[in-house]
Amino acid sequence: MNTVYASIITIGDELLIGQVIDTNSAWIAQELNKIGIAIKHRVAVGDVWEDIWQALDEESKHASIVLITGGLGPTSDDITKPLLCKYFGGTLITDKDTLTHVTNIFENILKRPMLEVNKKQAEVPDVCTVLKNERGTAPGMLFEKEGKVFISLPGVPHEMKWIVSNEVLPLLPKKFNTGFIEHRTLLTAGIGESFLAEFIKEEEAQLPSNIKLAYLPNYGIVRLRLSASGSEKEALNLLLDTHFSILIQKVSPYLVIDKDMPLEAVVANLLIEKGKTVATAESCTGGYIAHLLTSISGASAYFKGSVVSYDNEVKNKVLHVPSQVLANQGAVSEETVRAMAENVRELMNTDFSIAVSGIMGPDGGTELKPVGMVWIAIASDENTIAKRFDFKFTRERNIQLTAINALNMLRLIICG
Amino acid sequence: MNTVYASIITIGDELLIGQVIDTNSAWIAQELNKIGIAIKHRVAVGDVWEDIWQALDEESKHASIVLITGGLGPTSDDITKPLLCKYFGGTLITDKDTLTHVTNIFENILKRPMLEVNKKQAEVPDVCTVLKNERGTAPGMLFEKEGKVFISLPGVPHEMKWIVSNEVLPLLPKKFNTGFIEHRTLLTAGIGESFLAEFIKEEEAQLPSNIKLAYLPNYGIVRLRLSASGSEKEALNLLLDTHFSILIQKVSPYLVIDKDMPLEAVVANLLIEKGKTVATAESCTGGYIAHLLTSISGASAYFKGSVVSYDNEVKNKVLHVPSQVLANQGAVSEETVRAMAENVRELMNTDFSIAVSGIMGPDGGTELKPVGMVWIAIASDENTIAKRFDFKFTRERNIQLTAINALNMLRLIICG
Repeated sequence: MNTVYASIITIGDELLIGQVIDTNSAWIAQELNKIGIAIKHRVAVGDVWEDIWQALDEESKHASIVLITGGLGPTSDDITKPLLCKYFGGTLITDKDTLTHVTNIFENILKRPMLEVNKKQAEVPDVCTVLKNERGTAPGMLFEKEGKVFISLPGVPHEMKWIVSNEVLPLLPKKFNTGFIEHRTLLTAGIGESFLAEFIKEEEAQLPSNIKLAYLPNYGIVRLRLSASGSEKEALNLLLDTHFSILIQKVSPYLVIDKDMPLEAVVANLLIEKGKTVATAESCTGGYIAHLLTSISGASAYFKGSVVSYDNEVKNKVLHVPSQVLANQGAVSEETVRAMAENVRELMNTDFSIAVSGIMGPDGGTELKPVGMVWIAIASDENTIAKRFDFKFTRERNIQLTAINALNMLRLIICG
Repeated sequence: MNTVYASIITIGDELLIGQVIDTNSAWIAQELNKIGIAIKHRVAVGDVWEDIWQALDEESKHASIVLITGGLGPTSDDITKPLLCKYFGGTLITDKDTLTHVTNIFENILKRPMLEVNKKQAEVPDVCTVLKNERGTAPGMLFEKEGKVFISLPGVPHEMKWIVSNEVLPLLPKKFNTGFIEHRTLLTAGIGESFLAEFIKEEEAQLPSNIKLAYLPNYGIVRLRLSASGSEKEALNLLLDTHFSILIQKVSPYLVIDKDMPLEAVVANLLIEKGKTVATAESCTGGYIAHLLTSISGASAYFKGSVVSYDNEVKNKVLHVPSQVLANQGAVSEETVRAMAENVRELMNTDFSIAVSGIMGPDGGTELKPVGMVWIAIASDENTIAKRFDFKFTRERNIQLTAINALNMLRLIICG
C-alpha cells in the first residue's frame, strides 16, 4: 500500500497580499488525515490565469488528489470556473439542480430578487460532477483526469466545510485505497521546548522508523505529537499506544493532558467533572479569559460570569477593591488581584475565580511596573493564591500568555 | 521595470496535518508588499528532506526571493539547517556572535544552564550571511545562488517578525530594483457581496488594466480593495486615488471607513475623537466584544469595563435585570437586553453601552428561541435601541457575527 497524497491549492490575491489568513487549508488537512490521506503540499496562488494553470499541472504531478479552494464567489474577480472548464476541456452549461437550489435560496430564505451573477453560479463545466452546497450558492465541482481527482470548492469556510464533510469525504475512500495515518498528541506546561527534548531524548531515540515525534510550542504550552503511518490499522494503533504510554509516563511531571485540546477545554472538563463553577475578574485581558471559557458549548455548566474592570472606578465600585489599595499599591499589584479574585467569587457565587491585572503594552509601562508585568490570582473556598509574571512581548501575545497562565494556575489548583 | 517576486516556503508537518494555522505567511506578504515585492506562491511542505529540496528548486524558478520559515527550533525534528548547508554547498561552523548572544540569553535572561542543543543553534553554514535574532536563539540565514536570494527564518512568529523587520526589509531594496504596488481598501456594511458588485459594476468596468478590484467579505463586512502596480510611485498613487474616490462616492450609503482597519478600531477612533466612553454587558458573547475593544493599545481612553452575565443570577444580581423579566420574557429578549444596556451604562458611568443576549448553539435552542437568535441593545443618554438578529451558523461564527453587528450598531448611533 502506498500513501495517498493530496495537495491543496488556495486561490486569491487576498491570501498573497496577506489580507486574509488561510484557515481552510488547516481544516481540510485535518479532515483528510483522519481518512488516511496525507497532504503533500499546500500552495497559495493569486487570481492569475497562468499561475492557477501551472499550479494544477504541478500539484497533479505530486499528488493523486488536488483540492482547490477559492475563486468561486459571485463577483467578477473570479476566473477559476472558466479556467477549470478549459483545463478539463469542457463547456459551461447550467446545472438544473443547482439553479433550483440557488433560486430557492433567493426566493425563500434571502427573500430578495435574484441577480444575473447569482444565476451564473449554477453554470458548471459539462465535464464535472457537481458537489452540492447546501450552505451557499456556489457548488463544488469534481473532475477526473489521467487517474487524478481534482476538486474545486468555494473559499467561504462554512460552505467549503459543508461540501467537504457531506460530499467529498464519503467519496474519496471509494476512489483510492488509502492507508492509515494516526496521531497522538499530549500537552505539557512548565517546561521549555529544548529542556523537554533533552528530558525525553532516550524515549525519542527508541521510536521505530514509522513513528515521528514533533514539538509544537505555543504560549507556554508545548504539545508533543507522535505520528505513525502504516497499512494495518489495529497493529498501527497498538504500536502507537505503546510508545505514547511511554511518553506520557516520562513527561508526567509536566503533563496537562494526553489529548489534543485547548487548555480552556481541559479546564472546562475538570470543572464539569468536579461540579464546580468559576468567574473571572479581568483588567488587562479585557474579557479574553471569559471569552476562552465560553467558546465551548455548554459553558453555562461551569462559567457564571465576569467583571471586566478596565477602569479603576469599576475595580472599586463593582469589585470593591479598596480605594487605598488602588492609591497605594496600584491597580497592578498583589493586593489588587487578591481583592478582585475574592470579591468576584463572592459577587458571582462561584467555587473558583480568576483575577488578572497587568500592563499589556506597548504603552503604559513605568520603571517599577514595566510592560508585561502581570499579577494573577486564583481564589477558592480554601485560599487565594497570587503570582507575578513578567512577559516581554507584543500586546496580543502578552494578553494570550496571561490568559493561558491564568487558566493553567486554575487547572493546577483544581487538580490539587 | 519588472515586478520583483518572492515565494514563501513554510516548513513543518504541523502545517500539513492542520494542527497549526499559518499566520506567518500573511504577515510576511503584507510587509513585502509595502516595499513593492509581490508574492508569487506560498507553499507549505512537511519535514521531509526531498520535499524541502524540491520546493527550493521549484520556487527559485518562479521568484527572485525565496523566504523559508520554520524548521529552525532547538529540537530534533528539524532538518532544515543541514539541508540548507548541503543545498548551498557549505559546512556547518559555529558563529561566534550568535554563540555569545545565545549564551547571554541563558546566563542573564533565562538564568538556566545552557544545553548542547542550545549551543548547536549557533551553528550556521559557512556560506550564509547571519541575520541577527534579538528575540530568540535561532538566527536567520541569507544565501545567494545564481542571482536569487534565499532567506531562512525561524517559525516562532515574534522571532520571525523581528528578523524580517530589522534585518530583511532594510536589505532587500538594496539587492533588487523593486517597483511599486499600492493598495486602497474600504469597508462596507449592510450590503452583500453580489449586490455590492451589481451596485458598482459601472465603476468597476472603468478601471484601467493596472488596477484590480477585489471583494473580501467577512462576517457582515465586505472590504473592497483596489490594487495597482507600476514604476512611477507618484503617478500610480494619483491614478489610484482618483479611482478610489469614485468608489468611495459610489458606496457612500454603505461605507464604514475608507481604510483597512478592523471595525473595533473604527469604533475606538470614533469614541476617542468624540471623547466618549463605552461599557458592555455580555451574555452570549462571553466577553468577546470587550476583548475586541481592548485589543487596541490605549483602550482605557474609551473603554471602562464589562459585566459578562452568563448566568441569570449575575444578570439579576449584578446588572439588576428584574426577576420577573427573566422569568416571563426570558434571558434572550428585548426587555432583558434593554435592562442590561441601561444598567451597565449606569453602573460603569459611561456615555454608551452595548448589551447582547442570545443562543450561540449548537445546543440550547428551542422552537420559539432557536439557535442563532440574538438581541442587541445600545444605550446612550438619549435612548436605548434594541434589535433582533437571527444567525444560522456555527457557535464561533455566531459569536463573531454578534460582536460585529453590535459594534456596527454602536458605530451608526455614534455617527448619528
